[in-house]
Amino acid sequence: MNAPFAARGTATVLPQPYLLFLGDTTEPGFAKTAFGLRDWAGEKCVGEYACGATVSTGLPRLTPAEAVAKGARGLVIGVANPGGVIPPSWRTSLVEALEAGLDIVSGMHVRLADIPEVAEAAALLGRQLIDIRVPPADIPVATGRKRSGKRLLTVGTDCALGKKYTALAIARAFEARGIDADFRATGQTGIMIAGGGMPMDAVISDFEAGAAEVLSPDGAPEHWDVIEGQGSLAHPAYAAVSLGLLHGSQPDVFVVCHEPGRTAMLGTAGYTVATIEEIIDLTTALGRRTNPNIRCGGVSFNSSALDEAEAAALMEAESNRLGLPVADPVRGGPAFDALVESCLA
Amino acid sequence: MNAPFAARGTATVLPQPYLLFLGDTTEPGFAKTAFGLRDWAGEKCVGEYACGATVSTGLPRLTPAEAVAKGARGLVIGVANPGGVIPPSWRTSLVEALEAGLDIVSGMHVRLADIPEVAEAAALLGRQLIDIRVPPADIPVATGRKRSGKRLLTVGTDCALGKKYTALAIARAFEARGIDADFRATGQTGIMIAGGGMPMDAVISDFEAGAAEVLSPDGAPEHWDVIEGQGSLAHPAYAAVSLGLLHGSQPDVFVVCHEPGRTAMLGTAGYTVATIEEIIDLTTALGRRTNPNIRCGGVSFNSSALDEAEAAALMEAESNRLGLPVADPVRGGPAFDALVESCLA
Repeated sequence: MNAPFAARGTATVLPQPYLLFLGDTTEPGFAKTAFGLRDWAGEKCVGEYACGATVSTGLPRLTPAEAVAKGARGLVIGVANPGGVIPPSWRTSLVEALEAGLDIVSGMHVRLADIPEVAEAAALLGRQLIDIRVPPADIPVATGRKRSGKRLLTVGTDCALGKKYTALAIARAFEARGIDADFRATGQTGIMIAGGGMPMDAVISDFEAGAAEVLSPDGAPEHWDVIEGQGSLAHPAYAAVSLGLLHGSQPDVFVVCHEPGRTAMLGTAGYTVATIEEIIDLTTALGRRTNPNIRCGGVSFNSSALDEAEAAALMEAESNRLGLPVADPVRGGPAFDALVESCLA
Repeated sequence: MNAPFAARGTATVLPQPYLLFLGDTTEPGFAKTAFGLRDWAGEKCVGEYACGATVSTGLPRLTPAEAVAKGARGLVIGVANPGGVIPPSWRTSLVEALEAGLDIVSGMHVRLADIPEVAEAAALLGRQLIDIRVPPADIPVATGRKRSGKRLLTVGTDCALGKKYTALAIARAFEARGIDADFRATGQTGIMIAGGGMPMDAVISDFEAGAAEVLSPDGAPEHWDVIEGQGSLAHPAYAAVSLGLLHGSQPDVFVVCHEPGRTAMLGTAGYTVATIEEIIDLTTALGRRTNPNIRCGGVSFNSSALDEAEAAALMEAESNRLGLPVADPVRGGPAFDALVESCLA
């Protein structure tokens, strides 16, 4: 896992350890970058820093100077709001981090170098501003050519409900079974964790499927690329990203990620979360265009709002209803083993 | 029709009349920009110019100097190859056009200003280099909010088979019936014809649906936006563009564009053109997410490869088979009237 991204990818080397910046975020769904780094690269995170945020990673809250004293080298913007903007209210904190000795790593759409105060401070102090969301310049148009090796893609009934987490857990589970596998990152957090990948939502639409083809090149026949999904085919803003990634990934297997109890689709007004069956049907109907053998391997639940017994009962009922394995990768256990085996079947 | 594009659009003023440049193109499907300008803005085109092309618009073949003598002010790059590149073999011709006194208008992905010989000649001579494929900088993320007014979107079983042509013809037919309508352009040729629009395939994927929302803002209850489609939901390279446009357009009615006899999908190897029924099913399943009332108004055939009797017989048979009006807007007649009435029903 986490092999260096070959050839045309964004092989960025990031300044670690990190201090995680939460801004003034009050919506936990928007802090998935920080949560992902805590969970999957925790040994690289010394603490968190905020300017009004009510969400927390549970890591020590440190000033930039305190973080530097603990060895931090980079401030990572750990939140992703709609549109990927950096609001003016964050700027003082970013400059403070630069002054304390930290480089800044951002996965936002807005480039750090386009914020005058930040750009000037970085230039004056000799700090790096690293925008990992800037895609490589030479992405080709997709060809649709079938590539060798095996591929799994996580998809979702909404944004921000566990597609990256599920892909990381499945890639680890494959490796634990002795199967050669790479986690392929498609968003800012995944790229920060993996050290490489393709920022799919920042790619120009005409090249979206081509970018997914570049992300998971030809592999050995028994090798698996486990690809982090993006958005949802049912999301009114982000479905274009999801479809380009699906077509270009040519997955043999997909896993539907869902959060029981979530009703409203993130970042929209008046849209309900899609059903699992809708996503299975859309993914199969569209995905078979580039891989006629596409199949659903199962369902991944983000059941963090439920207690152990509630979650187990719900997953068993949903598994019986759908005729597919249903598991929460955070909880693991036999249900998750069954999901992993189903993907490999 | 062709009202100036309001607010956040690319309200470019183009230098007219045009000389149409065909480069060294041998594939008629790639010359749709030139054909579209000939057909829909013919009074603005003095002739064509090439450096090895075997395709022709039928307009007089002129040197840039001859075109300037006939009043031309702009050389329009009239071809669009996969990826939108300007090959080195065209550069001498482009510089010759600048030297003769023409500005250059391009809809390619590559920016004219990024080609050193062209940029230097333009700077030296004081000519304009206009890249109409550069989208506006302030496109928002889509909200999915239902907008007022009515919308029609053309969709396709492949690229380059009549989606723009069909939208232009339907917008004209609506106006001929006294209905207030705007043609909304989404590609380089349409934008050149309309004088404004949104270059959908050049928009960053995360903003694709948002760009379509900007393109057709709230309208009067009885007003129609007739929106030019892009790509195909079944195309392995371009489906992301098609889905973002579909979600953001929120069409009440869609018309499926198809070329009878075409078997291989353009720009791919091993992919067949989608069936009309597949495109109806995919468009309905995906489009109802942002407009639950979406319906297929009928089918538009590009029947240029058939003679009159063959085309009429095929369209009648297909209309009976599908239970929908089928017409070729180039041929017009009662079949096209029936298609227009079905869209308005």
